[in-house]
Amino acid sequence: MKTYRYERSSALFERARKVIPNGIYGHFNPVHQVPAGTYPLYAASAQGARFRDVDGNEFIDYMCAYGPMILGYGNPVVDAAYTEQLKQANVCTLASPVMVELAEYLVDRIPVADWAFFAKNGADVTHLAVMIARAATGRKKVVTIAGGYHGSTPWMQPPERSGVLEDDRLHVVEIPWDDAAALERALSEHEGDVAAFIASPYHHPTYQDSALPSKGYWEHIQVLLEKHGVVFISDDVRCGFRIDMAGSHEYFGYKPDLVCYCKALANGYPISALVGKDALRDAAADVFYTGSFWFSAAPMAAALACLKEMDRISAPKIILEKGKKLTDGMVDIANSHGHTMKVTGLPSMPYVRVLHEAGIKFHRALCGECARRGAFFASHHNWFLSAAHTDEDIGRTWEILDDAFRAVVI
Amino acid sequence: MKTYRYERSSALFERARKVIPNGIYGHFNPVHQVPAGTYPLYAASAQGARFRDVDGNEFIDYMCAYGPMILGYGNPVVDAAYTEQLKQANVCTLASPVMVELAEYLVDRIPVADWAFFAKNGADVTHLAVMIARAATGRKKVVTIAGGYHGSTPWMQPPERSGVLEDDRLHVVEIPWDDAAALERALSEHEGDVAAFIASPYHHPTYQDSALPSKGYWEHIQVLLEKHGVVFISDDVRCGFRIDMAGSHEYFGYKPDLVCYCKALANGYPISALVGKDALRDAAADVFYTGSFWFSAAPMAAALACLKEMDRISAPKIILEKGKKLTDGMVDIANSHGHTMKVTGLPSMPYVRVLHEAGIKFHRALCGECARRGAFFASHHNWFLSAAHTDEDIGRTWEILDDAFRAVVI
Repeated sequence: MKTYRYERSSALFERARKVIPNGIYGHFNPVHQVPAGTYPLYAASAQGARFRDVDGNEFIDYMCAYGPMILGYGNPVVDAAYTEQLKQANVCTLASPVMVELAEYLVDRIPVADWAFFAKNGADVTHLAVMIARAATGRKKVVTIAGGYHGSTPWMQPPERSGVLEDDRLHVVEIPWDDAAALERALSEHEGDVAAFIASPYHHPTYQDSALPSKGYWEHIQVLLEKHGVVFISDDVRCGFRIDMAGSHEYFGYKPDLVCYCKALANGYPISALVGKDALRDAAADVFYTGSFWFSAAPMAAALACLKEMDRISAPKIILEKGKKLTDGMVDIANSHGHTMKVTGLPSMPYVRVLHEAGIKFHRALCGECARRGAFFASHHNWFLSAAHTDEDIGRTWEILDDAFRAVVI
Repeated sequence: MKTYRYERSSALFERARKVIPNGIYGHFNPVHQVPAGTYPLYAASAQGARFRDVDGNEFIDYMCAYGPMILGYGNPVVDAAYTEQLKQANVCTLASPVMVELAEYLVDRIPVADWAFFAKNGADVTHLAVMIARAATGRKKVVTIAGGYHGSTPWMQPPERSGVLEDDRLHVVEIPWDDAAALERALSEHEGDVAAFIASPYHHPTYQDSALPSKGYWEHIQVLLEKHGVVFISDDVRCGFRIDMAGSHEYFGYKPDLVCYCKALANGYPISALVGKDALRDAAADVFYTGSFWFSAAPMAAALACLKEMDRISAPKIILEKGKKLTDGMVDIANSHGHTMKVTGLPSMPYVRVLHEAGIKFHRALCGECARRGAFFASHHNWFLSAAHTDEDIGRTWEILDDAFRAVVI
């Protein structure tokens, strides 16, 4: 199978390194992910489930912009709604009617939601959720799951990270995933001072297998939080709309007080949302929180169209099925090469790795060889399926994987 | 003069109150700004320097979406660049070439800038600036100006606000505006533990007159910061591109280490930027900081086009002149009605109020009467001029003000 070269990507990266810290920063940073020269670095265009890099190579995209793309790049339904609103008004001095319609849709669609608040980043709404919990309870502490991710605001980061102070995490109490007894101990230890518990619907750390909740976990957590009067925040930023349109918590059978959305809410247009229960409406109204572009109307129109379209096609069901099909086939191909491929998390957002005596090195090399043949996977992060991935894409991906296994040299 | 009615705005707001905390939140919240029923609440469309509300009323807009609009709503040059990039790729799994071009343009155009970093909110980059300063210095404290605004992240908010903890401000040291001796005292008191000083190029609080720096102020500040090894952060989120294309600090004659941009950078498309000196490049590279939509290419293409267009027409010069013309005329009209109108700050972002024995009440009523006649001003916040405001807009605004003075009843 012909393999790709990335000359223009490399040349652009050299220019970038002069004017941008690390050239490419944050979760897009390619450094240390895979062997040098096996990943493309810059996209020229994107359509459906594929993108083309600046060297003209085409990739089936299993990262979906790390989540935002869910109905396919350039989805005509979402784009039409976006463009129509953009022509009328986007950023403006006043709010826009579509903001009310979008809030009404979310409140109708998500059983726990009595109100909605819109911002730009996922971290905007995870942060707001904690502020609301503090305003409502008069307490300070936030219980989080070790290895969880709620954005890159300092209190959400590991304390050893550059620019993060120990004091940023002064009121953060970390417990292990899937350990209700640990929550119980934390609530006793900080009795009367825990404002909130924040977690994702299931555990999806980076560089580690994903982990689903044990049977009864969420039920136990919910009972404990209610007993201690702690605000229950579900961070659905990453999972949102890839498990259940009514909220990933519905799939797992719990009822949070606040739910955070972002990524896939508008198929890539920038918007995040916090929805919440009536009991927290006054606290939400009391907190002052705002941003320059939070009232932009076009991403709200895109979100409304995206929600309706995802509902119409039952997107989570389709995407879960596609992920199952893809990864089942990949596991078989790995087996045929004498390798064991481990798939964790739900299939719409699978964390995949090849077990190997060389550790992550083999898996990284494999992801690099797949990329050079036209299937893009991150090696250290869960993947994302979309409603735009076709059977043809999946079939082609299997061929690529088969050839990549033959090519890996470590 | 005929006055507007807002029936559809009111009906929408009643719906909004059921599904959104406060109905409209943050800096767009109309509550307590002006007498009930004198402001429109929802925009249907916007073009040039005007918007139309959902009741069909047209307004000359002196808030410019609270800053983002600078070349006019629907500016064809910016919109063409945005739309062209949107057709190719926007949010994607990889970075886009336009990111490199935009960083190169900023580094070329802003003398203190050796690198650039992009995010979404103004608060994203003011926050990042502080993290970089802490990473670079190993220190904790941040000196801020009382009444300054750098976003709504808790440490940036007044401590009495709901959801803000005293501990959020543990390392914030507040000093008065325009008081270099106060900075000197703060640096002595916290000797060796001040990471950064953050301030806007001039002081533009809400509900208060704006204040320009005294002669020698910034020079004195810069000497003190250099002497104590403190990172100098200029928050140009609000002033940016309405004073000087090379940075508002150039106009005022100082050289910060880091400069924050947002609002007008892309004429309303969502993007913020931090630019910095070489000495802080490694610290910037060490900090992990990211967001779901920070690599979106279309707002970057819009920013590049907006910068080039602002440069081509010398936007800051035009906008300063328009603001001077507008406010000079308004002062004269106020005088003709026996009132004194006080204008502070630079004319491209004037803070305007009528001095009156009834305090802010008269000014609020006046702003309401202006709105009901087609000129939209906030009563408690600096206004924003744009390059799209025409002499005809300004002439019409004078007529409206003249009639509004006759109509005010308090």
